[in-house]
Amino acid sequence: MGKCVNHPDRETSFLCSKHNIYMCEECLECRDPDIYCKFRSSCSVWFMTKKKKGLDEEEKIEEEVKQYKVVFMPDNKETEVTEGDTLLEAAGKADVYVNASCNGKGSCGKCKLILESGDVKKESTPLLSDNEKAKNYVLACQTKVAGDVIVRIPEETIERKLKVAGMGQEATERLKKLVKDISPMLKEIPLELEQPTLDDSVSDLDRLNRGLKTTGCDVERMNVGIKVMRDLSAAMRDENFNITASVIRKKCSNEILEVKPGGFDSPMLGLAIDVGTTTIVVYLVDMKDGSIIGATAGHNRQASCGDDVINRIVCAEKDGVSKLSSMGISTINNLINEVVESAGVEYRRIRNIVISGNTTMAHLLLKIEPRYIRREPYIPTVSEFPILKAKDIGIKADPSAAVFVMPGPASYVGGDIVSGLVFSGLHREEPLTLFIDIGTNGEIVLGNKDWLMCASCSAGPAFEGGGIRWGMRAEEGAIEKVSVDSETQEPKIDTVGDALPRGICGSGMIDLIAEMFLKGIIDNSGKFKLDASHARMKVEKNERAYVLAFSDETGVDEDIVFTETDIHSLVLSKGAVYAGFTVLLNQAGLDFSMVDRMWITGGFGQYLNIERAITIGLLPDIDRGKFEYLGNSSIAGAYMALLSDDFRKEAREISNSMTYIDFSSSNEFMEEYTSALFLPHTDLKAFPSVKV
Amino acid sequence: MGKCVNHPDRETSFLCSKHNIYMCEECLECRDPDIYCKFRSSCSVWFMTKKKKGLDEEEKIEEEVKQYKVVFMPDNKETEVTEGDTLLEAAGKADVYVNASCNGKGSCGKCKLILESGDVKKESTPLLSDNEKAKNYVLACQTKVAGDVIVRIPEETIERKLKVAGMGQEATERLKKLVKDISPMLKEIPLELEQPTLDDSVSDLDRLNRGLKTTGCDVERMNVGIKVMRDLSAAMRDENFNITASVIRKKCSNEILEVKPGGFDSPMLGLAIDVGTTTIVVYLVDMKDGSIIGATAGHNRQASCGDDVINRIVCAEKDGVSKLSSMGISTINNLINEVVESAGVEYRRIRNIVISGNTTMAHLLLKIEPRYIRREPYIPTVSEFPILKAKDIGIKADPSAAVFVMPGPASYVGGDIVSGLVFSGLHREEPLTLFIDIGTNGEIVLGNKDWLMCASCSAGPAFEGGGIRWGMRAEEGAIEKVSVDSETQEPKIDTVGDALPRGICGSGMIDLIAEMFLKGIIDNSGKFKLDASHARMKVEKNERAYVLAFSDETGVDEDIVFTETDIHSLVLSKGAVYAGFTVLLNQAGLDFSMVDRMWITGGFGQYLNIERAITIGLLPDIDRGKFEYLGNSSIAGAYMALLSDDFRKEAREISNSMTYIDFSSSNEFMEEYTSALFLPHTDLKAFPSVKV
Repeated sequence: MGKCVNHPDRETSFLCSKHNIYMCEECLECRDPDIYCKFRSSCSVWFMTKKKKGLDEEEKIEEEVKQYKVVFMPDNKETEVTEGDTLLEAAGKADVYVNASCNGKGSCGKCKLILESGDVKKESTPLLSDNEKAKNYVLACQTKVAGDVIVRIPEETIERKLKVAGMGQEATERLKKLVKDISPMLKEIPLELEQPTLDDSVSDLDRLNRGLKTTGCDVERMNVGIKVMRDLSAAMRDENFNITASVIRKKCSNEILEVKPGGFDSPMLGLAIDVGTTTIVVYLVDMKDGSIIGATAGHNRQASCGDDVINRIVCAEKDGVSKLSSMGISTINNLINEVVESAGVEYRRIRNIVISGNTTMAHLLLKIEPRYIRREPYIPTVSEFPILKAKDIGIKADPSAAVFVMPGPASYVGGDIVSGLVFSGLHREEPLTLFIDIGTNGEIVLGNKDWLMCASCSAGPAFEGGGIRWGMRAEEGAIEKVSVDSETQEPKIDTVGDALPRGICGSGMIDLIAEMFLKGIIDNSGKFKLDASHARMKVEKNERAYVLAFSDETGVDEDIVFTETDIHSLVLSKGAVYAGFTVLLNQAGLDFSMVDRMWITGGFGQYLNIERAITIGLLPDIDRGKFEYLGNSSIAGAYMALLSDDFRKEAREISNSMTYIDFSSSNEFMEEYTSALFLPHTDLKAFPSVKV
Repeated sequence: MGKCVNHPDRETSFLCSKHNIYMCEECLECRDPDIYCKFRSSCSVWFMTKKKKGLDEEEKIEEEVKQYKVVFMPDNKETEVTEGDTLLEAAGKADVYVNASCNGKGSCGKCKLILESGDVKKESTPLLSDNEKAKNYVLACQTKVAGDVIVRIPEETIERKLKVAGMGQEATERLKKLVKDISPMLKEIPLELEQPTLDDSVSDLDRLNRGLKTTGCDVERMNVGIKVMRDLSAAMRDENFNITASVIRKKCSNEILEVKPGGFDSPMLGLAIDVGTTTIVVYLVDMKDGSIIGATAGHNRQASCGDDVINRIVCAEKDGVSKLSSMGISTINNLINEVVESAGVEYRRIRNIVISGNTTMAHLLLKIEPRYIRREPYIPTVSEFPILKAKDIGIKADPSAAVFVMPGPASYVGGDIVSGLVFSGLHREEPLTLFIDIGTNGEIVLGNKDWLMCASCSAGPAFEGGGIRWGMRAEEGAIEKVSVDSETQEPKIDTVGDALPRGICGSGMIDLIAEMFLKGIIDNSGKFKLDASHARMKVEKNERAYVLAFSDETGVDEDIVFTETDIHSLVLSKGAVYAGFTVLLNQAGLDFSMVDRMWITGGFGQYLNIERAITIGLLPDIDRGKFEYLGNSSIAGAYMALLSDDFRKEAREISNSMTYIDFSSSNEFMEEYTSALFLPHTDLKAFPSVKV
């Protein structure tokens, strides 16, 4: 008998000899990951009880609990798990990235691994082809460990280093010019104070404030913590009243954060972080002149809990928001390590951070309850975040680094959009502008310097490759351009990195559908009209499909096809986005002809062919000169807010002044949506330039 | 071998089997009380090394370390100490109050105990009379334990329950009327918020702020911490958007501290605390209507580190400021326990606290470096304290309770004086007023609603009984009134509580000196002129003394006398105070005739006979109607600031607007001081009413 590790007042006989801990029954059954998760998969207590529940045979409990080794190739990453854990759980433990769009439900088929050796128990799944099965492919979430196992991450799904999304060298140089006066949240202010005398005997703190006032600080609104007060007198006298004070400028007050003897030690750094549902981008910035001295991007590790924000929230409700938070934070911290190491700087010099992300991402990162985001009436807990400290949320930087999280006006129009607007300057100018971030959600902003309206339409994951048989992101091997010969109906494809095709990404799909529509392969409702006997037509799992690449031309040893279901998914997505434009304009009493500019942002837009997008009715049929691609405007706005108080202020103003239109229960939206489920649209007058 | 308890990276062989800890050599020798003190007197490791150092004989180290029991009578408090510890250290461990004005140096003779049984090693001392020695009196700081010991605290020095200083029932009733609108720092605001809908889908935090705004909160300047954001959505929905928000109003911003579902649970309480160098007073206040529902007072336990602020600072420099802080905080917490228990309330309901104390007390309590207070040019670290939380400083209340510490303008004019001014209203009115707090330091304020000047003169401890052969505080048995028969020169005495005399307190001394001067026992320089053969005259330790009470009339079995040195000490004290008045008036270009009011505050002033104080030249010879006694104005001001933001604002304004005059290097002060070292003064014209 011993005391429960979580409840010292309880005696319990459940001992894990491995971890040398006792746990009471309540803890063993508890689903709160803070209580049991850290031990879950490797703790014999936990497993013992699981068995006890299962078998209900007291004597069996004495049996030794089986632990097995799982090795992930090609990186040879190894971990130990308990019998019965899934390979997806093992991947999480080994810190190996495995995409699991459906959050381990076994429905997306993304978490493929190749079993090289060892015993496993597999659930049967229709999501693997015979070819794949023959090659020992398994779904990680549907496969339980039953012995020491070696698995390999398939070449085609391996995590590739992302290109830093959106902004190239030239663009970042341009960014620098957008910020005229650098005014960070956390400032380091060197002061040479006058020494006290009998005639000038104000307190040390008053002397410090007097010095700060001469540098323009608003000392009337200055707070100071007990630690600074305790360290103050020594710090001031260590180098003869030459000191450097760190001051945080908050929205409504300032705070002296630290006082160090002497002058600067080395230049202060900052981070601009764009936390996308899929991809996280980090810029490392020299706060003195705004130079971007490092930039990197990586997949958000939360992907193993699902592709979209709804799945992430579901996962947070089940496993606790802490789990999702650590996944996001660990992705960020790995990226920070990367930029910090390659720049050869100390992470403690990072003292200013701006995070831009959608509302769900912001909630999850900060461990703020996200559950009401997905429930009518769709309420975020927080829209405008106070300035936090890095240690509050676990970001690897100076623990006192100031963290500004971009505010967002609604559950489905978040800080990433506000950040994009800050960069775009839409809200500072006269022309009427439609601003759109196309992704799983299509976030739309309409307005100019006088007013702003916004909305979000649920486009679904198709544009990002989700729910599409061969859908993938714009990574190496993704088909990104398609043209179809009007005579032969044979396709011509281009892939990212000119690699053998492994799937098709969003821009490729739009190309494909536009081409299939224009070249008579499909009709305006998205049904195939090409003769079934055509060499490119085949039937897979009872539905018709167009073969983009035959197995011998691919990197996956299977035909890469596009099915009628895939077409339908894409039509639903484009219909939702177009209906969003229409309703937002209607609400403002406007129409497309009045739109002066149409700005597209987000990673997906980068590869978008405007002409083809108009052809399928995703974008309106207006003057092509009005379209502009902004790149990753979320990271750009974060960069600007990192350097300038004015832009942080603008962000708050934008967030507060936007009128949010909810489409979720709007009849008008449903009508427009239904009308938009044709190619290009039921109302052909709206698409005069699209001629089949 | 094991790991050092403070430095886990170090292996050490010093094991204390009693505490089951290892300590490395550095820790054993370290004087930082945070590192070793908690183990010091009872830890065998510590003692082992002490012996090792002393004897330098390896084999002796193996000897068992001797621990002895010390019992303090009459309360039968017991503790265990290590051979060689002093009885003063034992008293500290046993939490027994022993006055040690000189901080254990053996020079004040206050820490008397009676050895009832057991072995000790005594240093010889001239501070015990033969009579005392015969009765087994010892000085606690000069006596080391060498066996199990029983000691008794002498009847005459036993800690008596203090009357709650200053304010009686009537006065507290009057106090209540001074506060018109109750506006605590920390407010609990019940809100019935509207439920969110699709048309009203602002974030939970915005909804909360909207609610707060309707109650008059300045939400533009509202901060909120990460914990509140994390708890918010659940708290709001638990009772259907009926919540109670706790909001702290700070100087320059507000903060949402907590959000709880539902309405109030029980009324909020507050504490007004006057932290005197000698005495700490605590009021427990109902924040709803300002009723004082409990009040108590006790000796500041820091007294074992010396009587005055200088000794306390010296002690903090030697043993660390943490030690002094804990002594003060533990005194406060014991008093809080008392009031909370007798009122039958929960201490967690205490959510507002105001502390008033001199600059040194404030620094020590908050563990802020005090050392520059006592060094020219006498600089406090902090004058104006930000609002803190109870947990920051360890006060037993709700951990988030807001703590306002009264600001003080200078090292020797502190928050207690500012608090007194807030109560007095001096700064709100036209008449020119001299405000004086007589104690070890005489703090003087001169001014009216247009201007304020202040200064401090070092009066010495005489008025509080320090440095006087039979000096004591105004406790039971203290001679508080003296008259002398002009024919016989025989004294007539009154004692506090009509008990047998045990010593003489400040007011008694002033009476005595005035009477001796008026009745021809002493001359104007304070020398005896009474015939040496008079029955009341005797010679003690080579100096002449006047017998106030013969041993058989006393509670101490010795003659209670007043020596020429005692008289001189008192003359020095009164001279310093009077010189202070004069110089401050001179600096303002004024003289005593222009003073409209003279207000006296502090515990000592309570018993002061104005006429007698004028006779000896302590107070100026002005219209007696101008004098008024304010009682303990420090606690009264703290009470007012507890209830009202206006008064907290006034306190800050007073502290910032006072002009501090430093006397320490002033020639003018030295001249005035020298002139004031006669009875009543060298300038007899200034004292027309004093006729010998």
